[in-house]
Amino acid sequence: MEQTVADGKCRLEEDRESRLSDDIPRLARELASSCASNACFDHVGPTPIPDRRRVIGILVRCRDLLFPGYFTRGPLEEINLEYHLGQELTLLFEELSSQITYAIRHDCFRYELPCSQCQDRGRQAAAGFLNRLAELRHLLSADVRAAREGDPASKSVDEVIFSYPGLFAIMTYRLAHALMHETVPLLPRIMTEYAHSRTGIDIHPAAEIGESFFIDHGTGVVVGETTEIGDRVRIYQGVTLGALSLPPGAGQTMQGLKRHPTIEDDVIIYSGATILGGDTVIGARSVIGGNVWLTDSVPPDTKVFLKKPELVYKGQKGGK
Amino acid sequence: MEQTVADGKCRLEEDRESRLSDDIPRLARELASSCASNACFDHVGPTPIPDRRRVIGILVRCRDLLFPGYFTRGPLEEINLEYHLGQELTLLFEELSSQITYAIRHDCFRYELPCSQCQDRGRQAAAGFLNRLAELRHLLSADVRAAREGDPASKSVDEVIFSYPGLFAIMTYRLAHALMHETVPLLPRIMTEYAHSRTGIDIHPAAEIGESFFIDHGTGVVVGETTEIGDRVRIYQGVTLGALSLPPGAGQTMQGLKRHPTIEDDVIIYSGATILGGDTVIGARSVIGGNVWLTDSVPPDTKVFLKKPELVYKGQKGGK
Amino acid sequence: MEQTVADGKCRLEEDRESRLSDDIPRLARELASSCASNACFDHVGPTPIPDRRRVIGILVRCRDLLFPGYFTRGPLEEINLEYHLGQELTLLFEELSSQITYAIRHDCFRYELPCSQCQDRGRQAAAGFLNRLAELRHLLSADVRAAREGDPASKSVDEVIFSYPGLFAIMTYRLAHALMHETVPLLPRIMTEYAHSRTGIDIHPAAEIGESFFIDHGTGVVVGETTEIGDRVRIYQGVTLGALSLPPGAGQTMQGLKRHPTIEDDVIIYSGATILGGDTVIGARSVIGGNVWLTDSVPPDTKVFLKKPELVYKGQKGGK
Repeated sequence: MEQTVADGKCRLEEDRESRLSDDIPRLARELASSCASNACFDHVGPTPIPDRRRVIGILVRCRDLLFPGYFTRGPLEEINLEYHLGQELTLLFEELSSQITYAIRHDCFRYELPCSQCQDRGRQAAAGFLNRLAELRHLLSADVRAAREGDPASKSVDEVIFSYPGLFAIMTYRLAHALMHETVPLLPRIMTEYAHSRTGIDIHPAAEIGESFFIDHGTGVVVGETTEIGDRVRIYQGVTLGALSLPPGAGQTMQGLKRHPTIEDDVIIYSGATILGGDTVIGARSVIGGNVWLTDSVPPDTKVFLKKPELVYKGQKGGK
Repeated sequence: MEQTVADGKCRLEEDRESRLSDDIPRLARELASSCASNACFDHVGPTPIPDRRRVIGILVRCRDLLFPGYFTRGPLEEINLEYHLGQELTLLFEELSSQITYAIRHDCFRYELPCSQCQDRGRQAAAGFLNRLAELRHLLSADVRAAREGDPASKSVDEVIFSYPGLFAIMTYRLAHALMHETVPLLPRIMTEYAHSRTGIDIHPAAEIGESFFIDHGTGVVVGETTEIGDRVRIYQGVTLGALSLPPGAGQTMQGLKRHPTIEDDVIIYSGATILGGDTVIGARSVIGGNVWLTDSVPPDTKVFLKKPELVYKGQKGGK
Repeated sequence: MEQTVADGKCRLEEDRESRLSDDIPRLARELASSCASNACFDHVGPTPIPDRRRVIGILVRCRDLLFPGYFTRGPLEEINLEYHLGQELTLLFEELSSQITYAIRHDCFRYELPCSQCQDRGRQAAAGFLNRLAELRHLLSADVRAAREGDPASKSVDEVIFSYPGLFAIMTYRLAHALMHETVPLLPRIMTEYAHSRTGIDIHPAAEIGESFFIDHGTGVVVGETTEIGDRVRIYQGVTLGALSLPPGAGQTMQGLKRHPTIEDDVIIYSGATILGGDTVIGARSVIGGNVWLTDSVPPDTKVFLKKPELVYKGQKGGK
């Protein structure tokens, strides 16, 4: 066997040149020309494009600023805290303003809009975003406390900050939402879809979400674009806050309309519940049970549960 | 406290040698011999094995070729496009043919099959795969358009390409499926399980899926091995296209049989629906509502919804 | 356009100093002081804190030891196996004992506990963990076999080891659970939440799970903190083994109580089933059908299915 391997390796070395020179140029031509009729998508041209990896890097940098010392390499001491934050903010500003500039300029390029002041707008948006970080820090601390209080399995705030997927998804949403306020294209969705990928929690950056939000477990949660959520709301894995089904072809005409529900303060929604429609309002302090399917509003202080489903039992052993 | 820390550190340095030399050799022997009876699994021997990281690297390289310029570091210009593609194709061919060779050879090694021409087969399979890339590029562009048209929240094709998890899962499936056509073992599943990990969407590489496929949100979607899906199908998060429950111990005897459903052209399946069984056919243009559970066929042009479940309301405040 | 880009770039370079020097110091002060009242969370001080990346690195190193040769870079041969394992064990011991030490010391720091012998405890816990690796290797091999036998789509044990998310989640759980036996804080949950992130399978490290456990597909699975699972149990995607809903504010008082169900030997639970409550026992050899919702116990040898739900059909073409 080892002999065969060695033999095989020799043959590979010899044949390589001839083999590759046959096919690769033709394939490269084919791939390059396969797109001529605008049937495919590429981004070929001198304009730089946002870099997904750098956008995720911005997210990671923001997390370091929002929870100082938790994700820093090496210990962070009181005496150099302000210096450390200043340095991180400087790097964040540079990265963020250039990625925003690329995102705006790219939109101009793609849609042939009159494009000007992209760079100024990029820097203004980045500055506006940085000015909101202190406020976001308070918001996220309230989210941490909501997780600590809402989950009997939580052992410490550190455990929540280090490991809770719900917190990561909410943090990412709050950062992306702040970028949307600065009318930044592309980047917010890249961020929330990264969080979706890491957590299974899909929150659209345009949703409006109040304070002290807690998502437990979280896999499969969907919070649609025009959802509104009040303060102190708690939701569990598999909850969908979505749109009613669309008539065929209506996809684009529904853009911008309120299509997703409103959840008022202090509501709890248990796992697997689905709440659909832009006119659906779940009143304050209501509790929605697991797997409930709702397309109508619910008044405040209401509990809604699925009627216990009929189960069919077969067995025990020897029975049927 | 700092004093204690410093002290502790000193002690660690001193004790280290003695402590490690006691236990590690015994533990290494235990671990090495714990497997003697074939009760455990290892891959110890001179034959190289596919490298999961390199297989994922191949996937990333393919994405760069299918959407040129979107994920490239630095801008890609028209004038060097063909050269860039040629270089990328060369690197892809080398990586792919060696990983395929390892995968085939590893199967021979594991099952003691007569093994020959592994390397030739590896190169042929890689060449066959490369020849399909232009076609895959068109297929994926149709998938991008399906997402853009099917989702009212989508803002641009760029947003779809950069961030939509459904597109990433479908792209990975189409690449892995092309490798299966070349009868490559191991690699297709490593690829689709990587996409599953990133997106929560689990598509078996052997499934047959038509053009313009759109998966929205996607977390929890399962598309089983023998599923067949037509053109212009749209599915939502949590949809299972699966197998009926197996009699105990039937796992291996069911291999290769058609166990998963057939979904015809232009079908829409809303979130959480479960469709099971190899004989189940969902007829063209049908719509399957959220959470529907189906083990029987549905004729074309049919809408199937769950009868509105009975909900129990308690409240409002002071009521019960 | 290129001209504009070049112009823009020049302006950016010129303005940079003035712009940054205006705002950054103020923002850094704001962020540093925004936390003065303990309203926010940071970890600022001389005590090192566990490093999430290193904890994940420990997990990866353990996988290499449990499945030798599968994830090693470069081939691993019989003749150097023991040496390789010894070297890996040494590195693992060093990494693990220091991360455990940081985790224990961090808890002291946070809660102002009397802290001593953190480093000795870290090393003892790491040594105790290493002594269990051979046993874990046998446990995980039984899990691999359970996957191979339970899934008709599985092609080889190698496919299972390389790519099955259920195996990765179970491996991570078994390692984290072994750390919990050594009363290590923080690290177990960081590990299982990493697996949750990669697989969509959320197993609390304190759950008790028997041999030959198989999770198929797995996205959305939740196994709560006080769950007990017997031998040869098989579960599918979207299964929740959870707690009953809590009265408002009861989160912290429920800590430590048995809140999650007990699943006896040889039970199968199909996709989307939800089983809740600390008193709920699913008897041996029972089968729980897809989407079943259970808050009561089930005797052994019982099959529980949802009564076929009433579906509403509209269509076919021209009908309503």
